[in-house]
Amino acid sequence: MSSRFGTFLIVSTFGESHGKGIGAILEGCPPGMPLDETDIQPQLDRRRPGQSVLTTARKESDTVVILSGVENSITLGTPIGLLVTNADHRPGDYRQMRQIPRPSHADYTYEMKYGIRASSGGGRASARETIGRVAAGAIAEKFLRLTHGVDIVAWVSAIHTVDMETIDAETITRKIVDASPVRCPDPAASHAMAEVVARSKAEKDSVGGVITCVCRNVPPGWGEPVFDKLEARLAQAMLSIPAAKGFEIGSGFAGARMRGSFHNDLFCLKNDRLGTTTNHSGGIQGGISNGEPIFFRVAFKPTATIGLAQRTVDFDGQPVTLEAKGRHDPCVVPRAVPIVEAMAALVLGDAALQQKKFPSPPSGLFGGENRGEGVKIGS
Amino acid sequence: MSSRFGTFLIVSTFGESHGKGIGAILEGCPPGMPLDETDIQPQLDRRRPGQSVLTTARKESDTVVILSGVENSITLGTPIGLLVTNADHRPGDYRQMRQIPRPSHADYTYEMKYGIRASSGGGRASARETIGRVAAGAIAEKFLRLTHGVDIVAWVSAIHTVDMETIDAETITRKIVDASPVRCPDPAASHAMAEVVARSKAEKDSVGGVITCVCRNVPPGWGEPVFDKLEARLAQAMLSIPAAKGFEIGSGFAGARMRGSFHNDLFCLKNDRLGTTTNHSGGIQGGISNGEPIFFRVAFKPTATIGLAQRTVDFDGQPVTLEAKGRHDPCVVPRAVPIVEAMAALVLGDAALQQKKFPSPPSGLFGGENRGEGVKIGS
Amino acid sequence: MSSRFGTFLIVSTFGESHGKGIGAILEGCPPGMPLDETDIQPQLDRRRPGQSVLTTARKESDTVVILSGVENSITLGTPIGLLVTNADHRPGDYRQMRQIPRPSHADYTYEMKYGIRASSGGGRASARETIGRVAAGAIAEKFLRLTHGVDIVAWVSAIHTVDMETIDAETITRKIVDASPVRCPDPAASHAMAEVVARSKAEKDSVGGVITCVCRNVPPGWGEPVFDKLEARLAQAMLSIPAAKGFEIGSGFAGARMRGSFHNDLFCLKNDRLGTTTNHSGGIQGGISNGEPIFFRVAFKPTATIGLAQRTVDFDGQPVTLEAKGRHDPCVVPRAVPIVEAMAALVLGDAALQQKKFPSPPSGLFGGENRGEGVKIGS
Amino acid sequence: MSSRFGTFLIVSTFGESHGKGIGAILEGCPPGMPLDETDIQPQLDRRRPGQSVLTTARKESDTVVILSGVENSITLGTPIGLLVTNADHRPGDYRQMRQIPRPSHADYTYEMKYGIRASSGGGRASARETIGRVAAGAIAEKFLRLTHGVDIVAWVSAIHTVDMETIDAETITRKIVDASPVRCPDPAASHAMAEVVARSKAEKDSVGGVITCVCRNVPPGWGEPVFDKLEARLAQAMLSIPAAKGFEIGSGFAGARMRGSFHNDLFCLKNDRLGTTTNHSGGIQGGISNGEPIFFRVAFKPTATIGLAQRTVDFDGQPVTLEAKGRHDPCVVPRAVPIVEAMAALVLGDAALQQKKFPSPPSGLFGGENRGEGVKIGS
Repeated sequence: MSSRFGTFLIVSTFGESHGKGIGAILEGCPPGMPLDETDIQPQLDRRRPGQSVLTTARKESDTVVILSGVENSITLGTPIGLLVTNADHRPGDYRQMRQIPRPSHADYTYEMKYGIRASSGGGRASARETIGRVAAGAIAEKFLRLTHGVDIVAWVSAIHTVDMETIDAETITRKIVDASPVRCPDPAASHAMAEVVARSKAEKDSVGGVITCVCRNVPPGWGEPVFDKLEARLAQAMLSIPAAKGFEIGSGFAGARMRGSFHNDLFCLKNDRLGTTTNHSGGIQGGISNGEPIFFRVAFKPTATIGLAQRTVDFDGQPVTLEAKGRHDPCVVPRAVPIVEAMAALVLGDAALQQKKFPSPPSGLFGGENRGEGVKIGS
Repeated sequence: MSSRFGTFLIVSTFGESHGKGIGAILEGCPPGMPLDETDIQPQLDRRRPGQSVLTTARKESDTVVILSGVENSITLGTPIGLLVTNADHRPGDYRQMRQIPRPSHADYTYEMKYGIRASSGGGRASARETIGRVAAGAIAEKFLRLTHGVDIVAWVSAIHTVDMETIDAETITRKIVDASPVRCPDPAASHAMAEVVARSKAEKDSVGGVITCVCRNVPPGWGEPVFDKLEARLAQAMLSIPAAKGFEIGSGFAGARMRGSFHNDLFCLKNDRLGTTTNHSGGIQGGISNGEPIFFRVAFKPTATIGLAQRTVDFDGQPVTLEAKGRHDPCVVPRAVPIVEAMAALVLGDAALQQKKFPSPPSGLFGGENRGEGVKIGS
Repeated sequence: MSSRFGTFLIVSTFGESHGKGIGAILEGCPPGMPLDETDIQPQLDRRRPGQSVLTTARKESDTVVILSGVENSITLGTPIGLLVTNADHRPGDYRQMRQIPRPSHADYTYEMKYGIRASSGGGRASARETIGRVAAGAIAEKFLRLTHGVDIVAWVSAIHTVDMETIDAETITRKIVDASPVRCPDPAASHAMAEVVARSKAEKDSVGGVITCVCRNVPPGWGEPVFDKLEARLAQAMLSIPAAKGFEIGSGFAGARMRGSFHNDLFCLKNDRLGTTTNHSGGIQGGISNGEPIFFRVAFKPTATIGLAQRTVDFDGQPVTLEAKGRHDPCVVPRAVPIVEAMAALVLGDAALQQKKFPSPPSGLFGGENRGEGVKIGS
Repeated sequence: MSSRFGTFLIVSTFGESHGKGIGAILEGCPPGMPLDETDIQPQLDRRRPGQSVLTTARKESDTVVILSGVENSITLGTPIGLLVTNADHRPGDYRQMRQIPRPSHADYTYEMKYGIRASSGGGRASARETIGRVAAGAIAEKFLRLTHGVDIVAWVSAIHTVDMETIDAETITRKIVDASPVRCPDPAASHAMAEVVARSKAEKDSVGGVITCVCRNVPPGWGEPVFDKLEARLAQAMLSIPAAKGFEIGSGFAGARMRGSFHNDLFCLKNDRLGTTTNHSGGIQGGISNGEPIFFRVAFKPTATIGLAQRTVDFDGQPVTLEAKGRHDPCVVPRAVPIVEAMAALVLGDAALQQKKFPSPPSGLFGGENRGEGVKIGS
């Protein structure tokens, strides 16, 4: 269903952009985990508007409250209710847009689907919907970190036509990423990107970009074959983020241009288990993690709401010129970084719990001699 | 879960490559629809091996039998059981590979996940697993065609470094596609691609490629906001196909390099409802179809199993040289065309049934004056 | 999963008895339906404690707030967030019980499952958990009433050893039910029941009882064959209510003592469609509604928490005498009436939306001549 | 959805009574478990028709074939496909019934729901549908036995007005049960029941009855709070069996007539963990198993299809007299015993896998000092 994601670790979100609040329920988080609001707030702060002159001017503290599932800062194993109250709505800004479907926005399709829409702010199609994801994702991340040492870092690798240089995905940290106002860890590219965004803001236009994400320390064996392949779940998760247009795992579209003898990741002995000498697979083979870093890229289109005049038609088909007001990011990509991380955490947390249903190692279950998840292989 | 896809139109597949058979159950197909095996067999024939000298030599007729859910060639509304018996197994071909995880294949990850694997043929990780998808997808396609006139066509748009020219997605047909041995409707590119594949076969190597797919006549209003956006479900569906590495909806990664003022699809009046003058959105806005053609691209890596010698290690970490035997496609992309179509049909069929739960038009339900799915807008 | 119910109309609940609040998200409610808090509060008021001297003294106004999914008192088709803030907690009352698992309560099993428990009030095992169900159920009920005229009424038909006389299930109303302090519409039985409850309260003991429920105006065709039979979903829904021990549809256990020639419901012509002359089936045949009233009975055990001394052991196995303090109902059955109605509404609302996925009549879909849901049958 | 059951251990069934075959897919069975057809066939043999003069004369060997998921008699962790081919159809027997909805059967409701029905044999509403459940249930049972020593035994405790004496649920075995032609382990009652069935057969009438089931060695901690309480899932499972009319866990309806001071199960020390001195709870408290035997009862109505003349109406509302031909059991209850066991096994197998997602003991996960599933409690 629309507002729910996951099979074992399940997030359900609710809330309209200009309603009373935005929130989520996270089901399936194991009991006994230390948790309070300070584990969640930092990622919400990275996502919220008003972080710099490059982003929307909407003022929201986006302060999260845990409503349930936690007592004395320890999880109970019951559903964790999360709520962020909306503070700063200005419905008036959107009045003109009631009669005019904004090009490349969801006004028209919501109207066709539901026959009704939130009167302002985009309702569920607003980027504010992602607050629930980010809050729940922060909990998933803590679970992954505490139980498996999993470490997720995303960054902006391209804005408009500016690409960054390749970096070392083994060592990049959020701190390095956040040192850049556009969350691009390549200083030269960061500078150029900031200029592109500032110019596009000045011109009342918008630009898109690409986010790259790496997930380190994922053990082998996570993910399911066939329809719930780990990369398939990641693809769904990423394409469900507003404005996402593309997804690549590992070599991605470039891999389609390689020969098998080049693309294949040969096995080698790494420490006490098998690793690969290259990682075109992006850490996943046959839908299942192989122990190498998982990395993927997500393309985002330019923000649909722009101040520049657009010649379009209203709901009745009458020609109109639309100059969007309201407060809009000229480039959503830097703020999408924690959203990408949150969705990755929700996918991996789900896979972690799913894998737990098989006793580890399986051999212990029926007394056989099969190799199991934790079994060391090597000389 | 792993082997099931869909919420309202649900396919569950089963079967190992070298077991007794491969099959699927399709749940949710409405009652009263004409259906027999001849509706399904053509897509299985397009998928099966041995279609040309460019593909694997494994001989399989892949003949489907409908086990249930249909009587007198009419669907009953009950689960449709589908079975294809495996004929030609040659387990011996794979003996060497038992001890050596094939690079970039799923041997290692299955072993780490399950502690056991099918003894040959890749089990569920084999491309034969897609038989169940193609069979079920053919039924979904018939449902979509009969009820909404939906029309799905995929083709090979790139193999290795050969790209085809842009074609008219409004008029392309499967007949045109199948006139090319590599399923590329651009004759010059098709010729070059066939040469690339033949050479790669001669060299015991493999190549990848890209498939483009268009879905025409999808009405506005299909798909769900938030996590089950139509493009998110398509992304999951496509990345779940063996060897898929990337997915783009509409403008995709190229869209990330555009400005909003160029990328936005302006509305206009088309016949008696709103359309758009461009289609960078790929027919979907906010996760919901807008009535324009849905189009997307899927990247496939080169086949992992190659005859060329590879320096890798066995499960015990001992260096070995692997020269894969067995029968493998030098390029799976042409045979993946009906698989892409099948997965698109399963996604759209699911969305079609999901949308049906809202009475149409919604206004009729509660007596309001909302705009509904079927309501004509315009002068 | 634990805290979610439904496939098409989905309620997810959260909240501990002594935490910040209790709430629910309802997904799937169609857009365009008039809705505000006044549609929900009355059923919460019927459920809340402190309604009479016969019930627990805990003071809670249980005031519901709609957080999302509704604008200007009209549903948007998006998830409806519902929150009731907890006001009156007295954790101290429960201190003794921390070390002693209350007999026939969930203290011991939660501890064994989760290794942790809410420190007081029973957490999710408290009857307060049902607040989310009742709130969501009130919305489902409104949907059913507006779209199909469905009418759901439950009442207390037995308390302890006092049974009521048979009543006319066609005409019973909530107003009649609520005229009795124990919600039993048979005045003589009501009087006797009230005495039983008062005596059991005076003796610090508790009593159980039976609730009967009728759902009128459910059209034929709702419910699914096989595992999701309408009676199977009702059985799950009712047994999920705290303290429920049994469920009967139609003739129930008495039906097992009848002969087929007596039990079978013969068909007859009723108005313009088929009805039955008796209703041992309880309105459902083969898992699907037949248009007759759906009726069922639910057995509730006596409240587990009692003031009487009980010789039991603590978590360490040491003998102890437990005299529960806190505020507990001597009989939960009257307050369970709106909970039974809510769960019935959630089951039927789900079935109503599920049935909508098949166009009605099906014949219209594929041009056949099949009988459909709305087709009139008769002379 | 209709034909699927379970969240972690999932059975999907298919097949019409008079179609090509009946089958199931079982997903989620862990890898490495020994399994072949001989683990499944015995329960199918106990279910199949023609076991004695007391049952239907339809001849079916009901031989199961495993299509997938198993290699060399070991499970692979992939979906297990199961197929039983239909041998003996006699569509002609049912011709008259095409125009006449059989009273208390699903003919009318299927017609109203789907607008189409299988032409004979009841399609999915036939008792043959349960073949897939019994086959899948046998696998679930083996999993439960091998991993936890769980032991499930059901028996006939009442037929028509004949009740059996109370027996020792700790020691009853299937061998003892099967020594009775009506599967009632009380010899005197068994004799009387057989007479009742024989007489009802001679009179072309039918009788119902009650099945009691015990599940031994279920560890504490299985089952989920709120909507998926273990008793709620059992209730759904049992009410989904054709002809089931009621379900009781533990004390059931009789419990509603007890006082709390009598009904409460006091804790005591049993071996090295807590047990209870009585078991009115039926082994479940707050939806979660407590380590005591789980026991429940299921009521079955008399077979709807009888040879006695019934005055009813046809689909057009015209009065007719129906004397059903075909081959029908005068009492389905003895053959329902393995079906009850199978459904119990599917519920418990699902709960077993669900519980596995929490590492055991939970304390190990986050380093706390919580009590865990396996922790011994006592002096």
